[in-house]
Parts: sequence; C-alpha cells; structure tokens
Amino acid sequence: MPAPAPKSERELIRRVRRACQGDLPPGARALLGDDMAPLVPTSAGEILWTTDMLMDGVDFRSEQHDWHAIGRKAMAVNLSDCAAMAVEPIAALCAVALCDRLSLHDAERLHAGVREMGLAFDCPLVGGDTNSWPAPTVICVTVAGRVPEGRRPVLRSGARPGDQVFLTGRLGGSLLGRHLTFTPRVREALRIAAELRPTAMIDISDGLGVDLWHICDESGCGAQLDADALAASVHPDAERRAVESGRAALEHALYDGEDFELIVVLPPETDAAAAGRLGLRRIGCITLRPEVVIRGQGGDVRPLERRGWEHFR
Amino acid sequence: MPAPAPKSERELIRRVRRACQGDLPPGARALLGDDMAPLVPTSAGEILWTTDMLMDGVDFRSEQHDWHAIGRKAMAVNLSDCAAMAVEPIAALCAVALCDRLSLHDAERLHAGVREMGLAFDCPLVGGDTNSWPAPTVICVTVAGRVPEGRRPVLRSGARPGDQVFLTGRLGGSLLGRHLTFTPRVREALRIAAELRPTAMIDISDGLGVDLWHICDESGCGAQLDADALAASVHPDAERRAVESGRAALEHALYDGEDFELIVVLPPETDAAAAGRLGLRRIGCITLRPEVVIRGQGGDVRPLERRGWEHFR
Repeated sequence: MPAPAPKSERELIRRVRRACQGDLPPGARALLGDDMAPLVPTSAGEILWTTDMLMDGVDFRSEQHDWHAIGRKAMAVNLSDCAAMAVEPIAALCAVALCDRLSLHDAERLHAGVREMGLAFDCPLVGGDTNSWPAPTVICVTVAGRVPEGRRPVLRSGARPGDQVFLTGRLGGSLLGRHLTFTPRVREALRIAAELRPTAMIDISDGLGVDLWHICDESGCGAQLDADALAASVHPDAERRAVESGRAALEHALYDGEDFELIVVLPPETDAAAAGRLGLRRIGCITLRPEVVIRGQGGDVRPLERRGWEHFR
Repeated sequence: MPAPAPKSERELIRRVRRACQGDLPPGARALLGDDMAPLVPTSAGEILWTTDMLMDGVDFRSEQHDWHAIGRKAMAVNLSDCAAMAVEPIAALCAVALCDRLSLHDAERLHAGVREMGLAFDCPLVGGDTNSWPAPTVICVTVAGRVPEGRRPVLRSGARPGDQVFLTGRLGGSLLGRHLTFTPRVREALRIAAELRPTAMIDISDGLGVDLWHICDESGCGAQLDADALAASVHPDAERRAVESGRAALEHALYDGEDFELIVVLPPETDAAAAGRLGLRRIGCITLRPEVVIRGQGGDVRPLERRGWEHFR
C-alpha cells in the first residue's frame, strides 16, 4: 500500500493517535491531536510541548531561501503552535540533519535564525542534535511552553454552537514570502486568552479550509462563514498570487495555508468592538450542523472545501 | 567551506553552544553540552529533555532493518540519554519525514516500535509531527524526564581526580544487531544514582574512545584505564567482528560505539563489591593530567584515541 498521499498520512495519524490514547490519563488524552501535547500533568503547573519537522524542498527551498530565514521559520512554526493554545514559550531544542554540501557558515546561520527567533519570544535554544548526511536538510525544532497561571490551554475542541469565529489577520499568498517572515501570534494570543476567554483556537498552517475543519471536527460542530467578511480577510499577497494563477484571490485566502494567523472562537456574548481592539475580525459563527459553509449577502450558501496546503509539491 | 566532516560538525556545535550560553541563567548553562538539556529551572521540580534525529542510511538501513526495530531504536537512544543523567523518562514526542515509498503498514510499525519502547519505561508517546517526502526517512524523537525528588541530575562535568571509572556492560560489535535491540540502562542508572552517588556519567553512543573523552573534557581532567579490565569488557560481538575485520576485538570495543552502556564515575571510597552488585565493572580511574591512557600489567602506557562511531558512512 504505497503512501505518501495526504490521505494515508491522515490515516496514519488516526491510527497512531488511537493507539496512544489508551496510554494516557484522561486529562492528558483530551489534548491529543491539538497544537501542543501534554507534558507535565495539569496539577503540577501545566507544561505543554510541540515538535515540527521542516524538510528542504517541502517546507522551504534552500536554493532560493536564506538559511537564517529558514532557521527562523523552523522556530516560528513551533511558536505559532504555542500561540494557538495561548501558551507562553519557555525553551526549545533543535535537531538537524544537514545536507553534507552545506557550509559551516550556512549551518551556523541556520542555527542563528532558530536561536534569534526564539529569543524574540523569551524562548532560548537550550540543546539539540547535529548530524549531516548526503540528502536534503531536515530541521526539527521542539518547543515547550507554560500555560499562564490560573488559566487552561485553549483547545481545538471547545467551540460550541452560537460561538463567534474571528481571525487575527488576513490570509492567502503566503508563498510570496510571509511563510518565512511571519511573526507568530504569541503575544496576541496571550492577550486574547486573558481578556476574551476563547472557547477554541488554532493556527492556520494548512489553510482555513483545513484548520477550521479541525476545530469543527474536534468540537463536534460546524461553522457558517460570512462571504463579505472573508472578502475583507484576503491578504494583498493573495491578490498578487491571483494575478499569476488566474484563480480568485479568495481561493488563495481559503486554501493556500502557511498564514500562521489564528482562528479564534469566542463566546456568543463577545463584544465585536472589544475583539476588534485586539486585532480580531469576525468572519462567522459556529453551528450545530457539522458542515462548514460560506454564506453570501443574498443568502446563497456554498461549502468550504476541506483542502489546503500541500507544501511545495 | 564544505562541511560534513565530523570536524566541521564539532566546530558547529562549539559555535552554537557558545552563542546559546549567554542566553541562559547560570544554573541552566551548566547543562549545555550534556546528554539532556534543562527545561524547567531547578527550583520548580527539575525537568530535563533531549532530542535525537535518526536518518535512514546513517543510523539504520531500512532495506535491511525492520521498521518496528527502527522505531524502537529512535526511542531507545533518547531513553539512554535519560539513563546517562539518572533521569526518569516521563513523555515523548515523535516527528517523522517518511520516505514517500514507505507503506502505511510500515509507517504504523515504525510508530508502534517508538511507542512500545517508550511504554516499557513509562514514557508514553503524547504527540508528534507526520510528514512524507521523496527522500530517505528521518525520525526525530524528543523525550522529557524528571530528576528524582531530592536528587540532582548526574552531569558529565563532575568527575574528579581519584574517582573510579566503571562500565555497566561489555562493548564492541554493536552493528551486528545490538545497536537496534539494546535496552537503555534507565533502571540501572536510577539505582546507581540512588545508592552510589556517581560524580559523572555518560552513555556510550560514539564509543568509549569519544565518550570518556567527553567526561574528561567537561570535568577538566583525564583518565587511566586498566588494560586487563578493558579486555574483560569486550563483548562477544566484538570478537565476532574482529574475525571479519581482521582488527583486534579490543579495538572494536573501544571505538565501534552504539553500545549504549553507561560510563559511571564513582567517588574514590566506593566499594567495588557494592558497585559489582549493581552490575558495574571497574575499568580505571580519573587523573589530574588531561589525557586518557590505557595501562598494561607491565606498566606500559598507550593513549586512548579520541575517535569512534561515524555511523554507516
């Protein structure tokens, strides 16, 4: 049964997750499949952690991108996972398999990118593993973070019908450069969690068309998005991509991925102005029916396709 | 400056470590370059963590080795790092870049190997990252562990002249299979730490010829090994390898690596019989002079070369 197809990948994740679920106490089990995993059980001051592997030719292109920027991204995608759960990063590890044609200078710049991005969020690089091999470079950063005192991590599974759906920024066309240069929404997430008590959050790595579905699947509900609000959430880069691709800019916004903005689900009573002051734009609401649809001004409804980022393939 | 040479790798590690050192408080800094890195500062219940990346063709050969055994090794090398510092493993993450020709079945077996090896040491797999790509498979497991209450982690840097050097087992020829099937010395290490208060420990991944030097470098001292005791520490696999290679079995014991036994440094007053009851064999002592030598019965002395495992290259 030859893999790589995203379908097999999802099936593999499903099987591994099911196998691991029984190994954990119920409290920790609730976090499986979320942006970060449980490390130290909740009673002892909750620490979560996350790991992300980036591969040359898939998540970056070394012939095109700068090694410092590549290292920066390897750290930033992990910090974005911290943001997604409103967790404060505390420390990181970085393991690498460096292509044996990589110079010492470039390898050092890669690590400088990892380290400096971490330091910008008080997340020092404290260790790692260094290897080289005759194949493309692989970088695996692991970040641990702390749930702020007196709070709970924000899960994917807490959305309830009637909740409102917000975005921290605009989407689409990240491949023009933002997938490397984005600033993870850690600070925004911590303020949002402190002031607005979100019921669910996730960062957009695979695209709204995948990641909003994750929230709906885990929460056992659906969502209805407002076409006008989505139109206002299209990034100028999506417009530029649309010119090249011939597809609609909105398609790029919904399905490109690697935006690393947050989908933030807030309780029904949330004041949109208060959310707006924290940079959030309302794009829809959570529904009982387990489907995600986009509703136009005229009342027309179309599904949000469950698809998104498939890397550089 | 074209890398991969082990020399450039060491230089890279030196530079990255120097850059990161200033980012850490002194307590955490002491652990940089050890088998595990600091995660939560000592005052708050000390948690350490470690990450190891294994690559197809370097650390295992997928055309030859079973995927379950490969997964087992990816976890076991991390557990061996826990053993090296006398730390109790508590949880693990596993990130993979799977060769896109790998079947779903094999990918699942790889994860089963990781998970089952962890469970054998109460170290559940709690999360990870799954990717596929058109290149050889890479596996990166990260393990966190807890220093037993009332104790300190055992560092590489605590050896003092007059201390005695012990081994948990016999060395050499691990490529005949033990590099995949070894049992990490976690339980032994915890008992040794509780009963014998070691001043320094390390696990033998690169070979005695590299790893004992690590202890000496970090501790600012040297060691004198007893030739007869070393001869008694040669694994039968080293004898078998010697027949194939035409080199001496002792050479294999000193320089093959991937034994994942522990070098345990104990205070001068340690009773060899008490150490023996915990499976330890005395091989020498720590010296003031920063060199590692092997001393024969006749008083002849030769240096222990600073070399070891260079993977399958």
